[in-house]
Amino acid sequence: MLLMTQNGSRPRVVIIGAGFAGINAAKALSRVPVQVTVIDRKNHHTFQPLLYQVALAVLSPAEIASPIRSVLRRDSNMEVLLGEITGFDLDRRRVRIGGLSEDLPYDYLIVAAGATHAYFGHPEWAEYAPGLKTVEDAIEIRRRVLLAFERAEREAIVGQTSIPLTFVVIGAGPTGVELAGAIADISKRYMESDFRAIDPTKARIILLEGGPRVLPAYPEDLSASAERQLTEMGVEVRTNALVTNVEQGLVTVGKEEIPAAAILWGAGVSASPLGKMLGVPTDRAGRVLVEPDLSIPGHPEVLVAGDLAAAKISDTKWVPGVAPAAIQMGRFAGRKIKQLVEGKPDRDKDQFVYRDKGSLATIGRSRAVADLGRLHISGFFAWLAWLFIHLFFLIGFRNRFLVLSEWAWAYLTYNQGARLITEPIESERITAPKAKVG
Amino acid sequence: MLLMTQNGSRPRVVIIGAGFAGINAAKALSRVPVQVTVIDRKNHHTFQPLLYQVALAVLSPAEIASPIRSVLRRDSNMEVLLGEITGFDLDRRRVRIGGLSEDLPYDYLIVAAGATHAYFGHPEWAEYAPGLKTVEDAIEIRRRVLLAFERAEREAIVGQTSIPLTFVVIGAGPTGVELAGAIADISKRYMESDFRAIDPTKARIILLEGGPRVLPAYPEDLSASAERQLTEMGVEVRTNALVTNVEQGLVTVGKEEIPAAAILWGAGVSASPLGKMLGVPTDRAGRVLVEPDLSIPGHPEVLVAGDLAAAKISDTKWVPGVAPAAIQMGRFAGRKIKQLVEGKPDRDKDQFVYRDKGSLATIGRSRAVADLGRLHISGFFAWLAWLFIHLFFLIGFRNRFLVLSEWAWAYLTYNQGARLITEPIESERITAPKAKVG
Repeated sequence: MLLMTQNGSRPRVVIIGAGFAGINAAKALSRVPVQVTVIDRKNHHTFQPLLYQVALAVLSPAEIASPIRSVLRRDSNMEVLLGEITGFDLDRRRVRIGGLSEDLPYDYLIVAAGATHAYFGHPEWAEYAPGLKTVEDAIEIRRRVLLAFERAEREAIVGQTSIPLTFVVIGAGPTGVELAGAIADISKRYMESDFRAIDPTKARIILLEGGPRVLPAYPEDLSASAERQLTEMGVEVRTNALVTNVEQGLVTVGKEEIPAAAILWGAGVSASPLGKMLGVPTDRAGRVLVEPDLSIPGHPEVLVAGDLAAAKISDTKWVPGVAPAAIQMGRFAGRKIKQLVEGKPDRDKDQFVYRDKGSLATIGRSRAVADLGRLHISGFFAWLAWLFIHLFFLIGFRNRFLVLSEWAWAYLTYNQGARLITEPIESERITAPKAKVG
Repeated sequence: MLLMTQNGSRPRVVIIGAGFAGINAAKALSRVPVQVTVIDRKNHHTFQPLLYQVALAVLSPAEIASPIRSVLRRDSNMEVLLGEITGFDLDRRRVRIGGLSEDLPYDYLIVAAGATHAYFGHPEWAEYAPGLKTVEDAIEIRRRVLLAFERAEREAIVGQTSIPLTFVVIGAGPTGVELAGAIADISKRYMESDFRAIDPTKARIILLEGGPRVLPAYPEDLSASAERQLTEMGVEVRTNALVTNVEQGLVTVGKEEIPAAAILWGAGVSASPLGKMLGVPTDRAGRVLVEPDLSIPGHPEVLVAGDLAAAKISDTKWVPGVAPAAIQMGRFAGRKIKQLVEGKPDRDKDQFVYRDKGSLATIGRSRAVADLGRLHISGFFAWLAWLFIHLFFLIGFRNRFLVLSEWAWAYLTYNQGARLITEPIESERITAPKAKVG
């Protein structure tokens, strides 16, 4: 099926979002006779699996984020447009971009706008407990964690009092586990020689999980192993701990109030609002219920890929919201459009098939769990697997070698070079956390 | 003269500011039996001479900024306090810190709070024309310059119009020259393959200088050479061009209005307001008129060092506000206090003597000027000298090797990895610059 182009020249493919799905869709179209326009709100592609290392000051933003223009610079049929989508006109095949009076026409559209945090119907918690989806989020978390130590040191020097250095991480999915483990790592080891008046190794790290076990998506034996590894690192793991309120420096679990120097969010995700904007059926999390070939009902020229797509594996199972799935969906969407453009029927492109290559969750320095189907690994070897797989996927990032150097350096020396607090620091922000009341 | 300590134990030296002067003062006290407290508003020391490379996206912030705690971690008699000074009590020997109820007592005080931009009595221009003193400034300039290109590309793709890509740099001192040269470098070379709809090499870069020549503090032949090198790079240099107004996207020079995609400030500096807060005589720029030994009148235990100090070389000549001078003053101040603590009279410490080792200003890739007294160098060899001297001074920064790698990589490949726009981008910010009126 070859659709007519809108202007008689090369068909234009508009790709919304330059995450794993969007970039891989674009790459699949690099030698196809189409004009590709990649639109994103940011000018960079973010290697999300390593964001937590920026948040905990091991890596710098530029080491895990790459300008989209750099990623696509060798593909002469690609253009990049910085902007935010404000509407779709599926019938006239146009997208609306904030701040521009003219709409952008397309012949094919791939929507890969990803997901954001969900605060269980409490958007007001976002201010007090930042999540981790973007480079800005990572910088904000880094700022809050480092400022917590600074504040404690400062009080100890001048006021001769000591305030509790408690970090609360809400949600024990992969992000929550990574964050809790990384705070334990840096406070118990890296920061020891940094402070004079406080003892960073005395920091408390509390990981709260509403369900019965950490890493709920993993097999039970690996959840148990992850919890054991976290406990060995000094993290207090509390399962079945339902958070009922979050405010400035205070987390409420049932009737217990936990004062916190910093609160981080590792819990729910919800799909980008662009899913609903398409005007097609979505699931509870706002993900678009796509056809087997990732298109939306009635519009074979519009595909949805990545975390925004609710694609079925079986009647009861869905493709998970992980990087490998986004990469596979992106590639499929790109190839699907290639097939549509070339007019060659291809049965392989009628249905997206997810290939589960296993899951890895890192917990800390030399600690991880790996679910490779029948093979479950924990500890150092799982961590080594994690390390090599992530380095491998950094291909295309110019700074893979630099990241490896940084890692090796950090591993050997407990270095601390990335610990910059770069936003303006107002005095108000360096005040003590809210005291426990009652 | 040994002053009594306030608490009977080791005397406490409070150092305000962790720039070149403050860090070098602290380092001079590392084996002296004193307790040193370094206070800064930022948690990092910034290698200011390379800030413009962050501003123009060649280096990343972490490569030229190092946490103060890292710089001083091996010195067990040093503590670091993140905070802003809000007042001095010189009689009771205390400093007030914003947000804290208790003051911090000292036995010796070194004030090295540096300088900031001056807008010739027009503080409202700051919003439209950011200067370059901090990592945040550099990130803001990077954001504005990169957004200017993004905006032009975006208009060209969607609206099929083209808007003028004009950058205006105000002030042709070393910072202005660096910024203008670097924009020419990246637009004429590095960015060529990045854009599809616009031609970045067509960008105009206008350098405005109120005086008769660029680099006014340099010998005339080097000013002429710098102007020639800038012109060769495609920068339009306008001397005797007095800026009378700056607003959003518009610079006025006399009766001429220049619409600009981004405006950068490389003109005046004024001393930190802490100078005036000391209650001692200051010069017009707010710098403290110090005694020959850098102390303030009537308080031998209070020294001022770096850009905040107005120190005399002769009756008509003053120590310049450059990094080597700040380093020398910092070291002198530290050693002076060592001498006061140890009670050993030392004639060498009665008077600060500035050793002028020459000046270097970089203009662009392979271009610079160097004033080494009788020897004046221009072009590639001046640039090589600049390169090695700056690498040499990066000693103490863990990432000297990484910076060298980045440079070599950037030099060989015109890389673009640091081109991240990391602040939230609102649609309002991606609007066209103000059109020329009349």
